[in-house]
Amino acid sequence: MRKFSGNVTTPQGFQASGVMAGIRKKNKKDISLVYSESPCVAGATFTTNRVKAAPVNWDIALLKNGLAKHAVILNSGIANACMGEQGVKDNYEFAAKTAELLYIKPEQVFTASTGVIGQPMPMDKITTGIEEAVSMLNGSEQAGKDAAEAIMTTDTVSKTIACELFIGETRVLLGGMSKGSGMIHPNMATMLSVVTTDVNIDEALLQEAVSDAVTDTFNMISVDRDTSTNDTFIVLANGLACNKKITKKDAAYEEFAKALFLVCKDLAKKMAHDGEGATKLLTCKVFHAKTREGARVLARSVISSNLVKAAFFGSDANWGRVLCALGYAGVDFDPEKVDISIQHEDDFLDIVKNGMAIDYSEEIATNMLSQDRVKFIVDLHDGYERATAWGCDLTYDYVKINGDYRS
Amino acid sequence: MRKFSGNVTTPQGFQASGVMAGIRKKNKKDISLVYSESPCVAGATFTTNRVKAAPVNWDIALLKNGLAKHAVILNSGIANACMGEQGVKDNYEFAAKTAELLYIKPEQVFTASTGVIGQPMPMDKITTGIEEAVSMLNGSEQAGKDAAEAIMTTDTVSKTIACELFIGETRVLLGGMSKGSGMIHPNMATMLSVVTTDVNIDEALLQEAVSDAVTDTFNMISVDRDTSTNDTFIVLANGLACNKKITKKDAAYEEFAKALFLVCKDLAKKMAHDGEGATKLLTCKVFHAKTREGARVLARSVISSNLVKAAFFGSDANWGRVLCALGYAGVDFDPEKVDISIQHEDDFLDIVKNGMAIDYSEEIATNMLSQDRVKFIVDLHDGYERATAWGCDLTYDYVKINGDYRS
Repeated sequence: MRKFSGNVTTPQGFQASGVMAGIRKKNKKDISLVYSESPCVAGATFTTNRVKAAPVNWDIALLKNGLAKHAVILNSGIANACMGEQGVKDNYEFAAKTAELLYIKPEQVFTASTGVIGQPMPMDKITTGIEEAVSMLNGSEQAGKDAAEAIMTTDTVSKTIACELFIGETRVLLGGMSKGSGMIHPNMATMLSVVTTDVNIDEALLQEAVSDAVTDTFNMISVDRDTSTNDTFIVLANGLACNKKITKKDAAYEEFAKALFLVCKDLAKKMAHDGEGATKLLTCKVFHAKTREGARVLARSVISSNLVKAAFFGSDANWGRVLCALGYAGVDFDPEKVDISIQHEDDFLDIVKNGMAIDYSEEIATNMLSQDRVKFIVDLHDGYERATAWGCDLTYDYVKINGDYRS
Repeated sequence: MRKFSGNVTTPQGFQASGVMAGIRKKNKKDISLVYSESPCVAGATFTTNRVKAAPVNWDIALLKNGLAKHAVILNSGIANACMGEQGVKDNYEFAAKTAELLYIKPEQVFTASTGVIGQPMPMDKITTGIEEAVSMLNGSEQAGKDAAEAIMTTDTVSKTIACELFIGETRVLLGGMSKGSGMIHPNMATMLSVVTTDVNIDEALLQEAVSDAVTDTFNMISVDRDTSTNDTFIVLANGLACNKKITKKDAAYEEFAKALFLVCKDLAKKMAHDGEGATKLLTCKVFHAKTREGARVLARSVISSNLVKAAFFGSDANWGRVLCALGYAGVDFDPEKVDISIQHEDDFLDIVKNGMAIDYSEEIATNMLSQDRVKFIVDLHDGYERATAWGCDLTYDYVKINGDYRS
């Protein structure tokens, strides 16, 4: 199993495109299409927000309709959330127009939108965009890159990854793309992500692998604690790898699940690192917790704390804020047993032992914290469970981006 | 009943002082003392953080010791949190030195600290500070002002208020002070607050009034969702108003509880308005919720959202973020019945009806949102309960203050 540079067109039989429809901005790709001529099974997870955008409700219904799936059509610029009947109608058109041009049914096309809430989809531009996207469909690596670019909003880089695994002698491929980067918070985020794979797998098992993968990846990142109305993660599997179909939780399933986890983790970390205004990736690993869920909650609490994030921006080893964020997470632990270290690559620096500062060098700490990627290692000495969460620093640019997002 | 300008020395028999001990900064008052020669009953609430500072643990024990209370000694600069045995010992000295000079027992003196976590109390400076503070004790309004100034950290203004009520013909007074202003989040905050009153009341009833008052005041504000290790709210009642002692929940109790609520609400709003880096006070009122607690959670979710706060900083009527913050609060409601309005003083502007934007003037909305105090009014059309929460905008200065707090 290995990760490598690639995207949604890496697995066999998948095509993609990304085009400029001028939805909100000029010179920005904003319609993205992923397509497999071969029928796919699908797994997906969505936002837990009570307020769900029209495409999210559409996709949830699609998952249960028993039809083979063929495509995901996505747009950036307009979220199509809080638009009532109009939103439902526009979203149907979004799927139906795509389906018409691909000679499939609307109910075989997932939709996803991201952008401003409460404004209508400019359907004329979108229709033209879909026409162009379908005409541009192809299986090249560039086409996958275009698709990944077309879902970006405040992202500064596009996010893609591929992974290969072997089931027996058979090579299976996965390719993924995602976008952040504000409103990123467990569970899910204003993230859109599509992963394609040529694995041959039973649909119920694919869904299980998807749900499992999300728990410790996409659901463990936070940019700003805000959970969006549009979060969508869809996996399409077209079976073209021709491995013996995975129908139970055997070694082949475990291998595929592991690869899917790797892809999700890679995309999740890229989203955290590219959080709005972020300059650094903050990782918190919690060890020796009583329960797995407790470890997750504590790790997320640290990387979600505005005070920790602002201190991290200032490269200030303000470990008191880390301990404080653990303390208010609502998880039972003994503060007087907690150890905290900072890690950057192979360098470790112990800063807290038994809940108290030890005599460490502020200079070294500041130097480590000024790096691009830093880990806080928290040892609770309280059990056998662990978890990891990813976040970013809180910066002037976050405020700037979000103080004036709509203009 | 009326609020008026005043502070902890306003009620009969209370003295105060605030002096410069040079704990962390020069030319900043940092030791604060509140004292009543007449014995007091006390009520208090504290942080819910698992990590509690030494003074918090001391005060919790004091509440149960059955002794009359006489004083609260406070310092700003050093939180005395995460200091292990040393912290416990230093805190005892903090109380004991004060008690010695006031000819009382250490167990009659509450302590409170705020500031940097994990650094030791400079006991020589603090001892000198206590000596000066005791020598300066007096009942003037200026002394109360000094005491309020001496607990400020990143606060930009000191926060005080007084209130009078009548129980029969008897005038009863309350006076309060508090400090914010980062790490302000339900429940409690890096807030310290002391309220004095000359009411004559049973101690258990005082505690009940305190707990009740906190729920819809201090616990409904948020600056940054971080709950500190040091949050402390103490009420001392010396009985000198000589009202007939309040021993049950009669009309006199209700009147006193209402006055206490007014004092707490005033101080809470001042803390939110003076949140770190804040330029504006953001109020969210949720009406017609199914349950009171649901209304509280929803109101807090709106004023706690980084995205709402950043949009508010930019005077951007990004109501989608308000609806989104309601949606992820974990409370059941129907998004398609929600109305949202903006209110500034007597001006109302409806912006959302039945979960969708209505045709409002962005210019008027932006103009209202650029004011110093703005309310978001949320109507759920779902029941009979309501709640109010107070917060502030998220600004460049918040990041600046917290990126480099310790230096």
